[in-house]
Amino acid sequence: MSKVFVDVGISLDGFIAGLNGGPKNPLGDEGTKIHQWMYPLKSFREHLKLPGGESNSKDNDILEKIFNRIGANIMGKRMFEEGEANWPEEAPFHSSVYVLTHQSREPWKRIGGTTFYFVNEDIHNVLEKAKKDAGNKDVRISGGAEVIQQYLNAGLVDEFAIHVAPIILVKGVRLFDKIEKEKFSLEIIDVVNSSTVTHLFYNVINHNKK
Amino acid sequence: MSKVFVDVGISLDGFIAGLNGGPKNPLGDEGTKIHQWMYPLKSFREHLKLPGGESNSKDNDILEKIFNRIGANIMGKRMFEEGEANWPEEAPFHSSVYVLTHQSREPWKRIGGTTFYFVNEDIHNVLEKAKKDAGNKDVRISGGAEVIQQYLNAGLVDEFAIHVAPIILVKGVRLFDKIEKEKFSLEIIDVVNSSTVTHLFYNVINHNKK
Repeated sequence: MSKVFVDVGISLDGFIAGLNGGPKNPLGDEGTKIHQWMYPLKSFREHLKLPGGESNSKDNDILEKIFNRIGANIMGKRMFEEGEANWPEEAPFHSSVYVLTHQSREPWKRIGGTTFYFVNEDIHNVLEKAKKDAGNKDVRISGGAEVIQQYLNAGLVDEFAIHVAPIILVKGVRLFDKIEKEKFSLEIIDVVNSSTVTHLFYNVINHNKK
Repeated sequence: MSKVFVDVGISLDGFIAGLNGGPKNPLGDEGTKIHQWMYPLKSFREHLKLPGGESNSKDNDILEKIFNRIGANIMGKRMFEEGEANWPEEAPFHSSVYVLTHQSREPWKRIGGTTFYFVNEDIHNVLEKAKKDAGNKDVRISGGAEVIQQYLNAGLVDEFAIHVAPIILVKGVRLFDKIEKEKFSLEIIDVVNSSTVTHLFYNVINHNKK
């Protein structure tokens, strides 16, 4: 059955983006440092239709596996707007992307299989739609932090992966700010390490699972 | 040569203790959850002169190695006061402990080899004294968060280990609050994982090393 997962890069001090993020400053001040580990990798570059890249590494294998499991995405409006201004014409999703927003807008179809749907609905309903589109693949809760927190707090996430960069940002957008910790607990599945990043994989045990 | 290291337990969201910590509430609200992984281990229990415990695990080996490398400790006054009210008569250090404080107090010698020295001096000087006592062993900057931050920001730390518990505290004392991030960077040495904790080991590259 299709799983719901969160998968997000983070600084050692818990930030998933820098301050002052927006369409003209994607990922915020110094935020790209969080994802530095993936930029040289072949699987990342392929995803953006860029040539070359390093293919012989655990990091590359992990990233490829993540991309391959995604059948649909859910993201917040700010993340979409930041991306809209910066993604290539062939947006890097190749699947349905549900954008949680109060604005109504027609679906936006991009070459390469990405379609953005703009939805003003309960997050449970949006997840049902994403699951339907995902088929046998999984649904990724892409971000930002608030959307991840909403889905975690609602008990709707099955797996939680974070990629910890060995950097300290001091300021930025915190991943864990509005977590309702009594709603779930985490169980370590696996940890994989390279010289540039540490991948932590958790199962999410939801305490009020229907 | 003797190394200076930080070694500290942390929640996944970056807290080394809960709120409202003090002599009557050691580690703060829910703070003991951060260290839950070590309580059943033989090396932890031996350290406190308790019988039994699990000895056949990576976690136990790691903890034993940490205890064995410590030749002297440096800690803040609040950490000391919290411990003073709760440590057994044979305090669990078995070496010199320098307590940074503005109060003057005679050295306090405990059975089992722990002597607490109360020092109102520049942190560099205190480190020199600790290094002298440590001999071939290493100096541990024990905590709390502010003392760790002071030593990191001063470029005096060689190695940095954190033990990440798979829990989210939401509130508490943050490890990284006052870091001056331009002063140093981190280099991943190793990561070791068990079902209850993830150990992250870093070298600290100090940018203004004398």
